[in-house]
Amino acid sequence: MAGNSFGQQFRITTWGESHGPGVGVVIDGCPAGLPLGLEAVQTQLDRRKPGQSQLTSQRREADTAMILSGVFEGVTTGAPIAIMIENKNVRSTDYEAIKELFRPGHADYTWTKKYGLRDWRGGGRSSARETAARVAAGAVARELLRRFGVDVFAHTIRVGEIAAQSFNRAVIESNPVRCADPVAAARMAELIEAVRAEGDSVGGVIEVHALDAPAGLGEPSYDRLDADLAKALMSINAVKGVEIGDGFAAAARRGSENNDQMRMAEGAPSFLTNHSGGIDGGLSNGARIVARVAVKPTPSILKEQLTVDAKGRDATARVEGRHDPCIVPRAVPVVEAMVCLTLADHLLRDRAARL
Amino acid sequence: MAGNSFGQQFRITTWGESHGPGVGVVIDGCPAGLPLGLEAVQTQLDRRKPGQSQLTSQRREADTAMILSGVFEGVTTGAPIAIMIENKNVRSTDYEAIKELFRPGHADYTWTKKYGLRDWRGGGRSSARETAARVAAGAVARELLRRFGVDVFAHTIRVGEIAAQSFNRAVIESNPVRCADPVAAARMAELIEAVRAEGDSVGGVIEVHALDAPAGLGEPSYDRLDADLAKALMSINAVKGVEIGDGFAAAARRGSENNDQMRMAEGAPSFLTNHSGGIDGGLSNGARIVARVAVKPTPSILKEQLTVDAKGRDATARVEGRHDPCIVPRAVPVVEAMVCLTLADHLLRDRAARL
Amino acid sequence: MAGNSFGQQFRITTWGESHGPGVGVVIDGCPAGLPLGLEAVQTQLDRRKPGQSQLTSQRREADTAMILSGVFEGVTTGAPIAIMIENKNVRSTDYEAIKELFRPGHADYTWTKKYGLRDWRGGGRSSARETAARVAAGAVARELLRRFGVDVFAHTIRVGEIAAQSFNRAVIESNPVRCADPVAAARMAELIEAVRAEGDSVGGVIEVHALDAPAGLGEPSYDRLDADLAKALMSINAVKGVEIGDGFAAAARRGSENNDQMRMAEGAPSFLTNHSGGIDGGLSNGARIVARVAVKPTPSILKEQLTVDAKGRDATARVEGRHDPCIVPRAVPVVEAMVCLTLADHLLRDRAARL
Amino acid sequence: MAGNSFGQQFRITTWGESHGPGVGVVIDGCPAGLPLGLEAVQTQLDRRKPGQSQLTSQRREADTAMILSGVFEGVTTGAPIAIMIENKNVRSTDYEAIKELFRPGHADYTWTKKYGLRDWRGGGRSSARETAARVAAGAVARELLRRFGVDVFAHTIRVGEIAAQSFNRAVIESNPVRCADPVAAARMAELIEAVRAEGDSVGGVIEVHALDAPAGLGEPSYDRLDADLAKALMSINAVKGVEIGDGFAAAARRGSENNDQMRMAEGAPSFLTNHSGGIDGGLSNGARIVARVAVKPTPSILKEQLTVDAKGRDATARVEGRHDPCIVPRAVPVVEAMVCLTLADHLLRDRAARL
Repeated sequence: MAGNSFGQQFRITTWGESHGPGVGVVIDGCPAGLPLGLEAVQTQLDRRKPGQSQLTSQRREADTAMILSGVFEGVTTGAPIAIMIENKNVRSTDYEAIKELFRPGHADYTWTKKYGLRDWRGGGRSSARETAARVAAGAVARELLRRFGVDVFAHTIRVGEIAAQSFNRAVIESNPVRCADPVAAARMAELIEAVRAEGDSVGGVIEVHALDAPAGLGEPSYDRLDADLAKALMSINAVKGVEIGDGFAAAARRGSENNDQMRMAEGAPSFLTNHSGGIDGGLSNGARIVARVAVKPTPSILKEQLTVDAKGRDATARVEGRHDPCIVPRAVPVVEAMVCLTLADHLLRDRAARL
Repeated sequence: MAGNSFGQQFRITTWGESHGPGVGVVIDGCPAGLPLGLEAVQTQLDRRKPGQSQLTSQRREADTAMILSGVFEGVTTGAPIAIMIENKNVRSTDYEAIKELFRPGHADYTWTKKYGLRDWRGGGRSSARETAARVAAGAVARELLRRFGVDVFAHTIRVGEIAAQSFNRAVIESNPVRCADPVAAARMAELIEAVRAEGDSVGGVIEVHALDAPAGLGEPSYDRLDADLAKALMSINAVKGVEIGDGFAAAARRGSENNDQMRMAEGAPSFLTNHSGGIDGGLSNGARIVARVAVKPTPSILKEQLTVDAKGRDATARVEGRHDPCIVPRAVPVVEAMVCLTLADHLLRDRAARL
Repeated sequence: MAGNSFGQQFRITTWGESHGPGVGVVIDGCPAGLPLGLEAVQTQLDRRKPGQSQLTSQRREADTAMILSGVFEGVTTGAPIAIMIENKNVRSTDYEAIKELFRPGHADYTWTKKYGLRDWRGGGRSSARETAARVAAGAVARELLRRFGVDVFAHTIRVGEIAAQSFNRAVIESNPVRCADPVAAARMAELIEAVRAEGDSVGGVIEVHALDAPAGLGEPSYDRLDADLAKALMSINAVKGVEIGDGFAAAARRGSENNDQMRMAEGAPSFLTNHSGGIDGGLSNGARIVARVAVKPTPSILKEQLTVDAKGRDATARVEGRHDPCIVPRAVPVVEAMVCLTLADHLLRDRAARL
Repeated sequence: MAGNSFGQQFRITTWGESHGPGVGVVIDGCPAGLPLGLEAVQTQLDRRKPGQSQLTSQRREADTAMILSGVFEGVTTGAPIAIMIENKNVRSTDYEAIKELFRPGHADYTWTKKYGLRDWRGGGRSSARETAARVAAGAVARELLRRFGVDVFAHTIRVGEIAAQSFNRAVIESNPVRCADPVAAARMAELIEAVRAEGDSVGGVIEVHALDAPAGLGEPSYDRLDADLAKALMSINAVKGVEIGDGFAAAARRGSENNDQMRMAEGAPSFLTNHSGGIDGGLSNGARIVARVAVKPTPSILKEQLTVDAKGRDATARVEGRHDPCIVPRAVPVVEAMVCLTLADHLLRDRAARL
């Protein structure tokens, strides 16, 4: 089986390349009767699009969504929802010079090995442009989650060596790095500008929260909620690590420190701590779901690097073009989208599991 | 959809509870013509079973595998391969006292929320006993990988605060913690004994390597090899984090440091470093595949902890019984099994993708 | 992907060969809380087993089911339900003589072409013995359907040239051919005895009904209820045709004759006829679901037939052994099982589709 | 799971409604390196489109395909292939008058029961317009089959009471009913004109052939080739029956008549007859694959019929508009498309099954 679909019950299939006519998604399994307007989708796409701040790629894309099916008189019909985003600002000529080179850290070499050929225009299908389709689909999932009272948001907690030290959700969207600590946010922005000036790039860490998800989501033993979140997040371009709750820090602890003890509170079971990140035994436990992802530095850099070419010759590469020196701020809505998709899928799957 | 299957082309479905008649697996999609004997399966099960060393649970299980179908005259036939492992040493009475308690850090509470009831005997389906079925299936996947020249092994690189400082593959299986650094191994064993004496438990980190996997494995954009490995590993009981290659360390780097540059070597493209852990753009690149998993401390501890019971009353729990103070050593073959299953699946999927 | 699973939400995976240790099934997705006893399963297996009447194979199999997981204290737990049926009466030596021959009308040739080898003992995996696992799983599906008020039964409407002329549900299980017309039943039995005496076999037609299924089952545009029923029924060994409602007869009609017109009756929409067999636009319409399957004559016959052998030589075959001269009566519970599995799957899928 | 995808390895997902912006398909799993031009797709769409002859609906649709992704420099890249066909000639006002009526024989009632609402413009998603997407996808599958030497075609063998009596493949596409018997074709055309004049409609039977498919296609025990063909064909709007090979005729035969005996011919095993329709034990046997489908009369007729409306009142319906009095001729390319999709899927699945 090929792998361009994600989810089982709320299932998306995406298509499109960086420099073709557009990218798109078909959502199959969204229940009928959900109010859905174009604004819900466009709002999220606008958070991902390039050119939205000084820190991102200056490539300008309107990234305007069209809903082609599945919505009638303002509500979903139960039929597949097709959404398309046209590619407007495509300059394939940027890539002519490097079409024979395998750019270090990119998919050029591996895709050539797999498929025997590749669409070299901006990475083709392997381009992060594909994440626009994820964000569009995630916006629909978010509307479904809203119906169930679930709220998802993410924020940047690290860029390079700079880590957030405080948390104020209200400031996340008011700074271009999407950091909940305004002081760290300013330093992160400076760092990103500095690496751009050097022709280099830098990585970071994003944390995502889901509030008010019901207990019991996840399908043991393999489609556990933590397992499916890990897959969802690791499938994002440039992500190299995923933690649930305290993650790697838990490995250094004692059980007596790490277990989340319980007490009754206002008539309901409640956890005194949340080391687990809201997931026990692969199922949501009703506490806040927390995960973190490690994002590697963008591989496209101006600095000269050693590589080889498609003819098997040693070569060097400098990746010109309009690249993000740090993809972390624009990855925040993508991380949210993948969490929304995973939770929407599991909310619906859970319903079918009950008598 | 329920979630007791893993893989698409080399697909397993597992069943069984901790204290029922046994656990088992059906493997669908193993190609015909593969030589397969019971020893290949039993060898791996013996590495996982309890009671194998002083450091593990002293519960004794023979964990003897039976192959019930799919093999004829010593080779696979293309029909589903069913394997069963009987439960022999079951003492449900160990659990009578706590059948109404939600043990902190366990799945007791979440499974009750999902299913409305639970098999309280040793955790039932949520027990790590289910991993015996994974190991049995992984042993078959390993035979298939061997046919393609792929070699998979894992080792313990951290227990609590003790980290391995050196690497010698040859010593891994000769010490009970499965650590490639014999000096650290001894200290890890001491630590495990110490926490056991305190009625506590401790976590750790396992690293897994796959050698000689061909380039091009993985199915973009969602069933990327890194995404499917993340899911496979995060689905193991007690795992809370997964890294590919340098993982979270990459988040603090510059692109110029993190990109793996290339040179021709002996006529083939070759990478000068392996920060990527052998995966670029979601596809294997031919270099060694490396991943790490964070294992939380076993939640079953003798120390008294606060909890609530099924009737909604505050309570305390002390988990008696024969538990592992550190599950990491026995998780090593489980980690290997999940990597073998993922790679076998992707090797076969890749074949169908080519003209 | 291999193909030993059926269903999406109520999903079965079967295993086992005719002359191995047994056959079995794992059911994944049966909701928790359903009362389930062994008798429900055994009752259906007894209707399928050989040796139950003069008309069937005289091979005697107890066909005793064991439930190995997924049921605790008499109810399903939401975990996979594994059921095994041991093979007791296996005489592989019956097949030694023909292990190199491709029996006409059997899977011997095609399985050899696919897998490169075959388990020649009684057909191995291709044997109709696999249907015992379907019947066991179907019995669990039937319990789920009972919970929703749905009732499924099938009956023989043709054996060779003898067709049923009347319908009385009460007599179906009281005659060995399972025909609802007792007069035709007697003639069918005579015909079966006559063809057996000639060393020949005969085919027939089975009709299946599902009562009180709710309207709206089926998932357009491909997993329509009629499409999934067609697959379910055509997947049974020896079935060569499937009709829904009036089927091929509809092809000769006018629209004005074939459309089922509607009137309100007792406050609810009601159909004046049921040419559609209870399915419109791929979805159940609330009327009785009716389908028919064509069963070919058993290919195992004593008469000498031309064939070739595995070494590529012309040969002749006479199939000795204990075969059914007409498989139709024993196929009735298999047909019911496949309809129960399909409806249970769609009942659960439908729940997940609703907001 | 929703059901708008078909196939596993060569997998399509379709979207779109009768009167929305268009219909489309995403093909996931088409191997890289296959030459693919727009003409291959357009040629097949032209065979299905309305207005192509006197006998069909006079609604005029250009049905122009656009390939939006997955093809670069004239060959497939391994990325998903998205194809869109815009709806040009949409007159929703045709349906205003009947938006509250459940048209007999249509999906209006059942879709309303399932989804709680429906897009009443021309049937919305339940419209046969969806089959344009199948035909577009089938055209790509056909190119893949061509690469493996497999040839698929279908023809009309019955319209109402008129049956074809002779077979000449060369004449199929030269008459508007697509019948291989030119004499019967003329009578069929007359019959269709006559029923149209009466404001009525008529059904028919289509036969489909696949030549030179290799032996061994199909995945036991459930995704057998015959089972998947039955599903594929029964999923087409208006199809009510499917036969493989001799189908229902086999039910009246003896085994000695029905078994296809074998002889060596030119060094290879060969069948003396083809009652099985090229499929034994669920796998292709190398002989010609033959299937037949029963197509019901179009439910949209001008004659007045009894029905009920969405408010639960008795009513009558006359379906005005531009409908096909017999959908059989235009269903021929749809039947071919579904067979191409099924065979392409199984060809690729078979490759993954081999060591």
